[in-house]
Amino acid sequence: MINRRLVLAARPGDEIKKSDFLLEEVVLPPIKEGEFLLKVLFLSVAPVMKFYMLDGAGIENPLQIGDLMRGRGVGEVIESKHPDFQVGDIVQGKCGWQEYVICDGSPYYMMYKVQQRGVPYSTALGVLGMTGFTSYFGLYEVGELKKGDQVLVSAAAGGVGSNLGHLARIKGAEAIGLASTDEKCKLLIEKLGYKGAINYTTEDISARIDHFFPDGINVYFDNVGGEMLDIALSKLKTYSRVVCCGRISEYKNRNKPQYQLKNWHKIGATRSKMQGFFIYDFEPQFHLAEREMAQWIKEGKLIYQEDVLDGLEKMPIALNRLFTKKNVGKQVVKILD
Amino acid sequence: MINRRLVLAARPGDEIKKSDFLLEEVVLPPIKEGEFLLKVLFLSVAPVMKFYMLDGAGIENPLQIGDLMRGRGVGEVIESKHPDFQVGDIVQGKCGWQEYVICDGSPYYMMYKVQQRGVPYSTALGVLGMTGFTSYFGLYEVGELKKGDQVLVSAAAGGVGSNLGHLARIKGAEAIGLASTDEKCKLLIEKLGYKGAINYTTEDISARIDHFFPDGINVYFDNVGGEMLDIALSKLKTYSRVVCCGRISEYKNRNKPQYQLKNWHKIGATRSKMQGFFIYDFEPQFHLAEREMAQWIKEGKLIYQEDVLDGLEKMPIALNRLFTKKNVGKQVVKILD
Repeated sequence: MINRRLVLAARPGDEIKKSDFLLEEVVLPPIKEGEFLLKVLFLSVAPVMKFYMLDGAGIENPLQIGDLMRGRGVGEVIESKHPDFQVGDIVQGKCGWQEYVICDGSPYYMMYKVQQRGVPYSTALGVLGMTGFTSYFGLYEVGELKKGDQVLVSAAAGGVGSNLGHLARIKGAEAIGLASTDEKCKLLIEKLGYKGAINYTTEDISARIDHFFPDGINVYFDNVGGEMLDIALSKLKTYSRVVCCGRISEYKNRNKPQYQLKNWHKIGATRSKMQGFFIYDFEPQFHLAEREMAQWIKEGKLIYQEDVLDGLEKMPIALNRLFTKKNVGKQVVKILD
Repeated sequence: MINRRLVLAARPGDEIKKSDFLLEEVVLPPIKEGEFLLKVLFLSVAPVMKFYMLDGAGIENPLQIGDLMRGRGVGEVIESKHPDFQVGDIVQGKCGWQEYVICDGSPYYMMYKVQQRGVPYSTALGVLGMTGFTSYFGLYEVGELKKGDQVLVSAAAGGVGSNLGHLARIKGAEAIGLASTDEKCKLLIEKLGYKGAINYTTEDISARIDHFFPDGINVYFDNVGGEMLDIALSKLKTYSRVVCCGRISEYKNRNKPQYQLKNWHKIGATRSKMQGFFIYDFEPQFHLAEREMAQWIKEGKLIYQEDVLDGLEKMPIALNRLFTKKNVGKQVVKILD
């Protein structure tokens, strides 16, 4: 059987290009005792993947040229010599950018079985996977969301952000989202549970925040860092929480000088908290979050948004869409049927 | 009876001067039913007091010219028509910069009785008062101090900082302090429980932190803000805590452009927490902290440092000493015997 896979061919520039990867076709060896074979159904992209591609100190070890590109996916077990995985199981984990995975089930792969929830398998990479868990634990635990809280979200139409309007509303809070186009803003309000939306490329962000939340904000869920963080800090009420989830403004061009923050003193002055987190620290509670969110989806309280491309060849484009603000909701790529 | 008091005469410039205040002598009226008369023994100074003096948006409402200068003190009840306060009681609260206080015991004054702990009454303004509570709750609660933690403290020879070496040590952690002179650095190590000290005016701060804590720091207790905060952020280990206690670098010259923070992204990248706090939120636990610290003082585990001037006239000088880095330990002024 032939496996098609994308390996790193070049370090990326500002834009991630198809030519940064090489499409290899390799023959799959037969699986050994203790292994299983996964047919990949969907692959996920996330901003942090650009860090993997870069040469230098990132969040995880950078890849070497020729390495299989790293990334999560969901797949179906089609052959198994592993006691814990049976043919037909749907599994989520570190697949890499390829069509088939031979896996020994070791902790490196972080594989776990996806429960049949009556929702598409792609959700295991989105609202019912790491992306959704990041929204859920980021807002509820790190953000300590309370009833009546006024929440500001950057990159609100992105994978994590697109869940936060409903997640806020479900707990009796209200959220305003920042997005890059009027179409995304419309979607935030009409579908994704946001009370209001701000087009940050055309509107006066500060004035619009004041319009929605004249007394300031209780929670800022930060997916971008940089100047937006500075504006948000200037709007903090006392005892606010700033959830440091992503810093896409910083990943984008690592050679440009870092943004220098003016309003850092607002953290102390408003007795607020600014906190980063590691989503796997919440792993013991993942299944609870998954169950609860699946229930909300069935009840129509949580409506999710996916942006699906088709075919392994589309992976570089899919990743680049995150940095060019093209994706609406969680960006995934359908790999095999 | 004559009361001497200092009222605000001018808004301060870079330095706080004697001429910023007017010394008034006024006749004390007899106390009414429900009031008591306090003879002030010691008054406290704190950096935030410069904010009170400035015209503009500070932490609390600024004073008007002619207003009694605001500040905490400890005094002895010498006459009482209030059921809860007896002659001879030692009381701590908002006295203002004056020798006698007529007080109705209303919440504004935040008066509470000082327990007889066998330590000088001045400690009710220092290690066993708000200053000490700020050290205690800032390090233990906001800083979530754990055994083995490596702690960096700025303004370590100041009122709050001077308690932190021993408080860290008592819990099995170790602290390094930043101070402005070699004499203060010597004191930090020889008397105040610090493992090491850095003279930030003559030494390479970053290299010296690396020398003491090559793997980075778990807690940064920030009394100054600005550039020191930036250096500390660059040294954070994962899951670190930055305690935003004071920002004297920002109070000092409000007209100079604010320091712009470069390493803000380290909060998210290291999954750390940066948090401000309001010491009165811990008020229900003040008596526990006081009892525990008094016990540590008796056992010789907690050694405190006071810097005492004599006489009401010295109050402006005492306050200015905080901004000119003259004080060593908690700065207080002895008012009446």
